[in-house]
Parts: sequence; C-alpha cells; structure tokens
Amino acid sequence: MMKEDLLYHFNLGTSTHNLPAMFGDVKFVCVGGSPWRMKLFIEYIAGELGLEDPKSDYPNICAGTDRYAMYKVGPVLSVSHGMGVPSISIMLHELIKLLHHAHCTDVTILRIGTSGGIGLEPGTVVITKQSVDATLLPKHEQVILGKTVVRSTDLDTDLAEKLLQCSNELNQFQTVIANTMCTMDFYEGSRHTY
Amino acid sequence: MMKEDLLYHFNLGTSTHNLPAMFGDVKFVCVGGSPWRMKLFIEYIAGELGLEDPKSDYPNICAGTDRYAMYKVGPVLSVSHGMGVPSISIMLHELIKLLHHAHCTDVTILRIGTSGGIGLEPGTVVITKQSVDATLLPKHEQVILGKTVVRSTDLDTDLAEKLLQCSNELNQFQTVIANTMCTMDFYEGSRHTY
Repeated sequence: MMKEDLLYHFNLGTSTHNLPAMFGDVKFVCVGGSPWRMKLFIEYIAGELGLEDPKSDYPNICAGTDRYAMYKVGPVLSVSHGMGVPSISIMLHELIKLLHHAHCTDVTILRIGTSGGIGLEPGTVVITKQSVDATLLPKHEQVILGKTVVRSTDLDTDLAEKLLQCSNELNQFQTVIANTMCTMDFYEGSRHTY
Repeated sequence: MMKEDLLYHFNLGTSTHNLPAMFGDVKFVCVGGSPWRMKLFIEYIAGELGLEDPKSDYPNICAGTDRYAMYKVGPVLSVSHGMGVPSISIMLHELIKLLHHAHCTDVTILRIGTSGGIGLEPGTVVITKQSVDATLLPKHEQVILGKTVVRSTDLDTDLAEKLLQCSNELNQFQTVIANTMCTMDFYEGSRHTY
C-alpha cells in the first residue's frame, strides 16, 4: 500500500480526506449500477434504520467526480459502479483500499442488481451462490502483465444462507439461492440467473 | 430491426421520440467516458461552429436516465459511454440503432479519451490505427451464444490520415498515428498507447 493514496475515481484521498473519520464505522457496503438507484437505496435504508435526517438530502460523497456516486447512512455505504465488469473492478479496487485506509473491520459487501432469469418466476430474488461467465464456467479471467489469471467465483455461502433466512422471515419475496451469469456484453452475451 | 424499438439506456425510443427530426442531421458522433467532459466538449464545439446559444445550457438529451449523457449542436452529437468495453458496447449498440432509425447518412464516429503512453512525450495526441488487447493482439473477442467471435480492431485509415492532416494544419499538438492498448481492467491490465 502507498503511504499517500489517491482514490482517483472516487475523488477521495488519504492526504485530502480523513478516511477513518468518514468511513471507520462502515459495516455494510451495497453496490449497484445506477447512481440514482443507489441514492434511493440509502434513503430506504435510512428509513429502515430510523436514521432519516429531514435536513439532509443525503449528499453524494463523490460529488467531485462523475465516475461513481457514494452515499452513507450509519454503518451502510451505498456505491454505484456503472455498467460492466471493468467499471465494477475499478470501483472495487478503490473501495477495498478505502476500507483499508479507514481501518474498517468485519465489512460485508453486497451487489444488488437486476438480471434476466431462466426457470424462475419474474420478480424472484436470487441470492447468487456462484457466478458463471459467458461460456457457463464458474471463473473470472483477468490478464495481468500479459498472463491470464483465473479466479474462483464462489461467493460466501454463510452470507447467502443468512440473506435467505432474512428473506424467509420477511416473507415478502420469492427468494432462492442460485447461480448468475455475468458476461462482457449486454445484448449478445446476456446476463441470466438460473 | 424491430418496428418499435426502445433504446433503453438512452431513455429514447421510436414510439416516444421523433428520432429523424431529433437526429437526422447528425454527421459526427464524438464519444468519451465522462458525462461532464462530453458536456464541456459540446460547449467547445458550439463555439467552434459559431452555434453558441446564450439562452440554452445544452440540455442532456438522455436526462431521463443516469446511464449515459448525450448533447447535440448542429451536426455533432456528444455521448458519454462510462468506463470499460461492456459499458461502451451497450452505448454503441443503441447508438447505431439510433442513427439507423433517424435515417442518418455518412456519419463519422470518434472516441476521444486519455491513456498512458509508451515512447511518447506526455501530451501527445494519438490517432489510433489499431487497438490491441491485454495480450497485445489486434483483436476483439466476444462470446455470443457460447461461441467466441473474434473481430478485427483495424480502424479507418483514411479518417486517421484526415485527422492527422487537421492537426498538422492547427500545429498546436504533437500528433501521431499509433496503436492503443485496451484492456478489461484499469489497474492491473492497463491501457497504453505506443
């Protein structure tokens, strides 16, 4: 890790912001594509946690850039990541560094989003167990310095079970643990949950 | 092509907008990552073309969505595409359909953006001849229905020569025709021009 670090696409940095004071209490990071949706999400969470502030309009912490939007209420951080794996990867790279600089501990990171579905009723909530690529294989490939690095796409089983339990207690949405397909293309590659 | 077509990520459609009236005169489409930068670009172009409108703040044509931003002045359309190849591909998919529905002819599409450089003075303007992937090969791979489709990344040589000639006439920026590397990752994959 660098001693002085600029999180360029958040317009945040270790020398310009007190990251421990701003983010040290973060325990949950919820990410999704659309900036507007992530703002709606933080408003919803503020209500659920009884932390609404009628004087505040939930300011965008990354207002100095148009790359991502970020909102915070209590222990919950809500961050947009744009569309596609490369855009998400830039955000996650800087997010992990942000959480490190802020000395956060026991943080849970969740992506919330939409997808097509195969063999599921429309409106079903899917908690992803494993993500598969455009060839249906459970792997994430990345070229680093000319060499292909393959990583597992297994997600946290305990977290998935806990989320399913929460949903069962709420009893409002049909919820299943299943796999999600993630491709590099929206129209011809397609993304589906099955 | 569908008879009725929704360009979802632009919040435009054939049944809700008169696309030929809105876009029929487009001859140049300039695209870039940042929405703010594409707005600055349309303001600059308006000045260059003598088409400034002191009463207008160049409204975002895609204001109904937060996925992309779009601005127009005379024959020039300026569109943001976010970060990464998947995000660009969604925009290009809908842009090509938009130009088709609007009956546009003889359209030139340019991407304007930044990159690192190898063997070039900082500030050099590079007109890309060929784009190479993270393994330095001049190809674009896409998985369609489980099969890998490989496409050429050769760009329009005549257009590159014309752009170089424009720059030579301006004589303001060091300009070269060269190759650009485009990867799926910002930090570990890297993007460079050489």
